Amino acid sequence: MEHLTVTAAQQCVLGSIKLLGAESVGLEQSLGRVLAEDIRANRDQPPYDVSAMDGFALRSADVASAPAQLDIIEDIKAGDMPRKTVQAGQCVRIMTGAPVPQGADTVIRVEDTQMLSDTRVQINVPVKANNDIRPRGEGMRTGEVVLARGTELTPGAVGMLAMVKRASAEVYRQPRVAILSTGDELEGLHDPFDADKIPDANSYALMAQVQALGITPDLLGIARDEPSHLKEMLQRGLQYDVLLVSGGTSVGVHDYVRPTLEALGVQMKFWRVEMKPGHPMAFGVAPLTWVFGLPGNPVSSMVCFEEFVVPALRRMNGHTRIHRRTITARLTHDVKHKHSRAEFVRVMLSREEGGYAATSTGAQGSGILASMSKAEGLMVVPADCTGMKAGEPVTVQLLDGAEYQNEAGGEW
Amino acid sequence: MEHLTVTAAQQCVLGSIKLLGAESVGLEQSLGRVLAEDIRANRDQPPYDVSAMDGFALRSADVASAPAQLDIIEDIKAGDMPRKTVQAGQCVRIMTGAPVPQGADTVIRVEDTQMLSDTRVQINVPVKANNDIRPRGEGMRTGEVVLARGTELTPGAVGMLAMVKRASAEVYRQPRVAILSTGDELEGLHDPFDADKIPDANSYALMAQVQALGITPDLLGIARDEPSHLKEMLQRGLQYDVLLVSGGTSVGVHDYVRPTLEALGVQMKFWRVEMKPGHPMAFGVAPLTWVFGLPGNPVSSMVCFEEFVVPALRRMNGHTRIHRRTITARLTHDVKHKHSRAEFVRVMLSREEGGYAATSTGAQGSGILASMSKAEGLMVVPADCTGMKAGEPVTVQLLDGAEYQNEAGGEW
Repeated sequence: MEHLTVTAAQQCVLGSIKLLGAESVGLEQSLGRVLAEDIRANRDQPPYDVSAMDGFALRSADVASAPAQLDIIEDIKAGDMPRKTVQAGQCVRIMTGAPVPQGADTVIRVEDTQMLSDTRVQINVPVKANNDIRPRGEGMRTGEVVLARGTELTPGAVGMLAMVKRASAEVYRQPRVAILSTGDELEGLHDPFDADKIPDANSYALMAQVQALGITPDLLGIARDEPSHLKEMLQRGLQYDVLLVSGGTSVGVHDYVRPTLEALGVQMKFWRVEMKPGHPMAFGVAPLTWVFGLPGNPVSSMVCFEEFVVPALRRMNGHTRIHRRTITARLTHDVKHKHSRAEFVRVMLSREEGGYAATSTGAQGSGILASMSKAEGLMVVPADCTGMKAGEPVTVQLLDGAEYQNEAGGEW
Repeated sequence: MEHLTVTAAQQCVLGSIKLLGAESVGLEQSLGRVLAEDIRANRDQPPYDVSAMDGFALRSADVASAPAQLDIIEDIKAGDMPRKTVQAGQCVRIMTGAPVPQGADTVIRVEDTQMLSDTRVQINVPVKANNDIRPRGEGMRTGEVVLARGTELTPGAVGMLAMVKRASAEVYRQPRVAILSTGDELEGLHDPFDADKIPDANSYALMAQVQALGITPDLLGIARDEPSHLKEMLQRGLQYDVLLVSGGTSVGVHDYVRPTLEALGVQMKFWRVEMKPGHPMAFGVAPLTWVFGLPGNPVSSMVCFEEFVVPALRRMNGHTRIHRRTITARLTHDVKHKHSRAEFVRVMLSREEGGYAATSTGAQGSGILASMSKAEGLMVVPADCTGMKAGEPVTVQLLDGAEYQNEAGGEW
């Protein structure tokens, strides 16, 4: 417990996290959720062989020595069913998505043809059988699982639900999350200005971090350093699936949070992690609730949220990909590292030949929240690192909200 | 116009896009929005020199030849103001965030001390001046711009707004987006099953793509291939900032969409782009509305949304980073490329030593929506490429919803 690494602490947290139950959501609310059921195709798609282009459906044998001239016997657009069978010397004008008629074995695109009259067309080039035809069932076949339980509902998956006519689906439910700040030094967002106090930024930074995962948290406010008030606030928080308490978990004699949580039946698993920022990071388990004790400094609190709360919340609501994406980047400057804790350095990223360059956002003091608002990633300096040199490859965890870049990244 | 590249088409779109106006939003709704005002600090933070650790504030000269024993004259916790001045041989017990008292010039953490009695402590090691002190104004100084106009409100920036006690802020407004599908072949989500029809997946895939940008679109439904109905639906769409019409923009004679849009005063800028999937991709400008004509195939429609609509919507609501992040990955297999259009291949990514490996999701037919729901990125095959070999470095645009990974990406 005295020298818990970040990885060991993550394993401790994730080892105690359970998947929450399922609920039904409408398609409009489904983005980002995780399926708690298998979704099966309810039809063949396309339901018959269809044209992949606007052009003419014909018999490939008729145009083997193109140019060749053919009679147009019918017009078929998407939504129409063909009425005639294509015979030798005949073709039909066909639109993208329309059924290929009996007799025809291929499609040629309109760009390779030339109209001679309303009912006659010249085919300029030969075309093989099955050209530009999308075969029946290419997209999906009746009964097959098109989205398996555990699939995250990306936009493509939401489209797939619509494709099988599912207006709602069973997904794992979202955790109910409460956020509580603690400490007499804090001034609430709507409290009058007091120059000697510190505005409560943590509640809102954490709110936004939770929102970024698609979850709407409840803000319980600020618990004062007064045992009965703190107890009452923590009791409220213990009605939720997840309670995030910031402040009050360090070793100071005035920190009531840990003993109060324990008195309320929370089994504390750890209360310190070998990391910077974020040393006083606690985690405990109550009958209904997973409790994260986050540091009082906003930056430390946010970094600990990234490392421990993000994967936990994502595991609860069914995700298998629970960690932030990491990339390898080239460090643009030296980084000193003398202590024995893993360090998470706020960095900006710039695209360069073959990858990314990572540059510190500047002063890394844990009270400097502005640096967190600039950061695109957290560069990981492992505990056993003795310093890093400019040019070295480093691992950067991407932070959400930085998922876009100025340039398209190439010309095409 | 006949051979418009993706890059040229993007430039055409972005050249006509204007930033929308500003509106005020509450902190709870501000995540992901872009500031339309400069935000200034309303106080020094911290308001005085404060301790960065739980420990003792003392005079560094007193412990130059530590171990040394000092009298504890006061306890100061965060939220308290010191009442006494530290004299030679004295110290105060101090909590993280509490003000450093007059007379003291440094802080030593509790781990480097040993209590002798309630009022006397042994300092085990010497400590320099200014150790573990966060100076007044380190986080911010009164009047300085802490978040500039144009900043995206990430969780850190939302925390910063709370830090300066802003319960609301001016941000660029979100575009109002309408989504319309077209074609007699389509079956609506709530329509009865008809084996000969194609379910309207586009409306919902596009809905989810828009939602992923933090915008709630309106679904107008399906316009039939009947001129007056189509005109009425398009007129409704032209009341919005952005109209996404899918289907009906190819060169087929049954495609009424383009002439109807033109009759309604939409100036079409292009109607084809040299890309695969997505060839029949149109863009036009009306007095109130930017109109995107997306292909009828769900995959093509989604890829065109990524390439053209994502950067446009992000530019409208004030983002400067408007393109999807790209990474360089190692291709795991050969890719053929014979035509002269840029191709966007759906790929999955796996982490490997030094970076990522990219692997096709399989069959790339534009009707195979399942492949889009699996994709983590779009690999770009430039128009002039003559094929790619396994092992080559390739550019991959990351798709949202794939921002997480199974493993933490290292141990620390």
